[in-house]
Amino acid sequence: MRRDRLFLAATLTAIFSADLYFILLPKLRRVGQGSERFCTCGPNNLTLLPRQGGLAPPQLSNWTLEESMSEPDDGLSKLDRLFAHPLYNIQTPELGPEEQLLKMEQLMDYNRRKVARWERHMKKYRDSAAVSNITAKEHKVTLDSDSSWLKFHMGISRYALYSRDQPAIPQLLGEMQNMAVIGADYTEDEKALKGACDCTKVVKPSGHNLKLALQMQNFAKGMFKPMRQQRDDETPEDFFYFVDFQRHNAEIAAFHLDRILDFRRVPPVAGRLVNVTAEVLQVTHNEDLKAVFFTSPANNTCFFAKCLYVCKTEYAVCGGPDMLEGSLSAYLPGLSIAPRISIPNPWTRSYTFTGQEEWEVKPFFCDTLKQQYPYDSGNRLLNIIDMSIFDFLTRNMDRHHYEIFTKFGDEGFLLHLDNARGFGKHSHDEMSILAPLFQCCMIKRSTLLRLQLLARPEYRLSDVMRESLEGDILRPILTEPHLLALDRRLHKVLQAVQRCVNQLGEDQVITMDFVKSTATPEVATVTPEVATVTERVR
Amino acid sequence: MRRDRLFLAATLTAIFSADLYFILLPKLRRVGQGSERFCTCGPNNLTLLPRQGGLAPPQLSNWTLEESMSEPDDGLSKLDRLFAHPLYNIQTPELGPEEQLLKMEQLMDYNRRKVARWERHMKKYRDSAAVSNITAKEHKVTLDSDSSWLKFHMGISRYALYSRDQPAIPQLLGEMQNMAVIGADYTEDEKALKGACDCTKVVKPSGHNLKLALQMQNFAKGMFKPMRQQRDDETPEDFFYFVDFQRHNAEIAAFHLDRILDFRRVPPVAGRLVNVTAEVLQVTHNEDLKAVFFTSPANNTCFFAKCLYVCKTEYAVCGGPDMLEGSLSAYLPGLSIAPRISIPNPWTRSYTFTGQEEWEVKPFFCDTLKQQYPYDSGNRLLNIIDMSIFDFLTRNMDRHHYEIFTKFGDEGFLLHLDNARGFGKHSHDEMSILAPLFQCCMIKRSTLLRLQLLARPEYRLSDVMRESLEGDILRPILTEPHLLALDRRLHKVLQAVQRCVNQLGEDQVITMDFVKSTATPEVATVTPEVATVTERVR
Repeated sequence: MRRDRLFLAATLTAIFSADLYFILLPKLRRVGQGSERFCTCGPNNLTLLPRQGGLAPPQLSNWTLEESMSEPDDGLSKLDRLFAHPLYNIQTPELGPEEQLLKMEQLMDYNRRKVARWERHMKKYRDSAAVSNITAKEHKVTLDSDSSWLKFHMGISRYALYSRDQPAIPQLLGEMQNMAVIGADYTEDEKALKGACDCTKVVKPSGHNLKLALQMQNFAKGMFKPMRQQRDDETPEDFFYFVDFQRHNAEIAAFHLDRILDFRRVPPVAGRLVNVTAEVLQVTHNEDLKAVFFTSPANNTCFFAKCLYVCKTEYAVCGGPDMLEGSLSAYLPGLSIAPRISIPNPWTRSYTFTGQEEWEVKPFFCDTLKQQYPYDSGNRLLNIIDMSIFDFLTRNMDRHHYEIFTKFGDEGFLLHLDNARGFGKHSHDEMSILAPLFQCCMIKRSTLLRLQLLARPEYRLSDVMRESLEGDILRPILTEPHLLALDRRLHKVLQAVQRCVNQLGEDQVITMDFVKSTATPEVATVTPEVATVTERVR
Repeated sequence: MRRDRLFLAATLTAIFSADLYFILLPKLRRVGQGSERFCTCGPNNLTLLPRQGGLAPPQLSNWTLEESMSEPDDGLSKLDRLFAHPLYNIQTPELGPEEQLLKMEQLMDYNRRKVARWERHMKKYRDSAAVSNITAKEHKVTLDSDSSWLKFHMGISRYALYSRDQPAIPQLLGEMQNMAVIGADYTEDEKALKGACDCTKVVKPSGHNLKLALQMQNFAKGMFKPMRQQRDDETPEDFFYFVDFQRHNAEIAAFHLDRILDFRRVPPVAGRLVNVTAEVLQVTHNEDLKAVFFTSPANNTCFFAKCLYVCKTEYAVCGGPDMLEGSLSAYLPGLSIAPRISIPNPWTRSYTFTGQEEWEVKPFFCDTLKQQYPYDSGNRLLNIIDMSIFDFLTRNMDRHHYEIFTKFGDEGFLLHLDNARGFGKHSHDEMSILAPLFQCCMIKRSTLLRLQLLARPEYRLSDVMRESLEGDILRPILTEPHLLALDRRLHKVLQAVQRCVNQLGEDQVITMDFVKSTATPEVATVTPEVATVTERVR
């Protein structure tokens, strides 16, 4: 209970600091200048958005004109300037042990057992290879508690997957781009399919997507999604979201966007060039996986999904002749030490041709939902609205479930996993993805503050995204039209908030991050909203 | 036996006429001019092809230069000039009744029974629709012996699917482009699959290709293959031939090419715009077919292959919003009155990733084949070589079987069905398709004469094809690079013949069209080669 009070104090201080910086100071400045030239980004300044009958888009050009005059001459890049902003630099107190997902000892024990199992398996394989006179590749595995991936796992807290200043994250990204791969296999969900091919289902099973689990030299594990589509290919207009390709570049871009939005709910993703012969075919011990490799008429090494025969070639991916680009997403800690629960998204879509879901037909869907557990506490709903904003920006319509770590109970943060179906169409904004925001008319103050910041020209979302993505070896990750669509969509989000404010007033819509928790003291002693803000605003 | 002699006489006259026109006259002309400026196209003039170590391509520019000076100023279009050429205008005697595929009475009886069955079916459907209060569309079927499609069926002879001057063919093409569709169903081979989805097979079953059988107002039937690919899309280099899309425009272009080569072994094919709602969904009584229709996110009417769930949407085809372009191929007479036999092509490819067929590994494959029935007569082999030249020009690698009408016995002409996998890559010539020509080093004199004619600038293959395809409503059918590839490939065929001649001498390679038949007198009283030439050279 004492820590509770401490947190409450810290949070209120943080919110006060933010308000001081964003609301009071600019007001004073405006008074001093006798004009409204500066568009500040506090929620009180929402009214500065041009109002055009409520439904027309804000006049971006007016904004840009006004704002471009205020661009600071600090010599910083826009991304550095963003991360140097007070909103991204409010300190939080140390995390208590219960607020961390894992204990170091437990994590090392778990991985030592895994390494031992791997080594037993390798020995068995070498022995049988020796019998059949095959030269098996030797790979020495080293488990080092200083590894970036173990630090990433240790750094997962009740508030986010990683903290903003964690040096292990850039290190992990670098390693995922370059480190030798010593093992390859199907992912667990693909194995669960057992090559099944259910002809009655409309939706592609995940096995269709050719993703692979790759094991690195230092025992880090990543999920590899191969490139299936050119950067400038748009999803055909007749495609349903659930049969769209998974895009490796969308997976990479989503990680960067999530970090820029300061959610930190997407595990690190890096671009990766894989030699499919040396780093998949020659290191896998899975006979099923070996069996799907073939040489194409153009003499490239290819492999196809094991499920469906039509996948065998049109659905194959091919190296050139061996090198294949893709995304590599860092694995989360194993489910046995860090169990997660997967919960259907209330705003899921019908995965049929004609079906409609409740939220599409019931006008008071959100009001009903708000009465139901676990959405009756408010925090979960605000997190879902955060997620819908994130998905709207990437145009990902495929959010059927979300996951949370069971350790943190009902109030844990939502993981934004599986973002590969975003960035399929730059030319169209799918407003229905924003339904949670539209229908519930609420948003976290802290989220809104950051969105407003990113709408300002000196922190412009497309510019910071471009800069952030430049760091990936597979650059350019997104084409310019996709980057510019982010700005357009961000303004549509702000406009949606504005419409809610016009209708219900700020107090109703812009929710204090500190919301009464329904969690029992044993499970969660601090409300996640406090926590989120505490960590986010530090 | 008397007709035999008559035919022999006619054939010898025809060959003599051709020799006179192509060999003697030009020689006389050359003597008169004291130069070799004109490249004539008789086989004796093969030696006029520039020889560059036997393997280098003929210098096209030299040919063009020489020939362009000889372009006649007759006011005819190139296609008209081609069809006015003596090689395309030698008269043949009347066909005897046994040389026609069908008798009029038999054909009308057969179709009357079919119409009666259709009307019974329609009545049953109307009755059940009346019970369930559905308004069933009324379609009056008229069977008229003057219909172009019945005339096409009646015109099929032992020598070709249609004769050159048959007015029913352009009429049939026009009707297929415009006539109202009153029924739609899966094709018989698709029905035979029964929606099966064999995950162990590499090759796509035909059900995958979404082709449909459409019934016209006048009871003509056509096979519709919808557009799957843009005209300028090239087959990806990593695709195997057996998983390549079927291209509606390849089907159309192949019919025109076959007619220009004067083979007349491809049934008439026309481009067609189909309203998938009014002309398929609303007129089919097949519940399985109705069930695969859906409306896409872009509000277009689409349908997918019934076999595989992955086909359901990526493999769907969509109207815009209802109109869908495709090819419509005239049906041959039903198998019960005109049975056909399907025979594996000796030069078939392995429909696996790594397999190799006999012809790919045995150096003396053709010599062995020549000893075996039915290739020991020579005629069948010459027909196969014709087919390989046709397939090489379109770059169709998917000729696993060929068909002949059983009525005409072993010596019947080969049907060139299913040409939709041609024209996938203009930038590459697949020399292995020419293996029958390379390996057997023989060609019909009549085929060679026409190929040489089409290599001359005043009849240039790409120009006559362009002109011929201009007549289709879906023009342009082929892009320019595909048209120009035809000229390049034609020269490669002539070069292959030249190489054989250099090696073995003209007499060995350029085969007299009159080849001794092995057929029993009851089955075939005239050798098809005589027949082919008789009809072809008239």
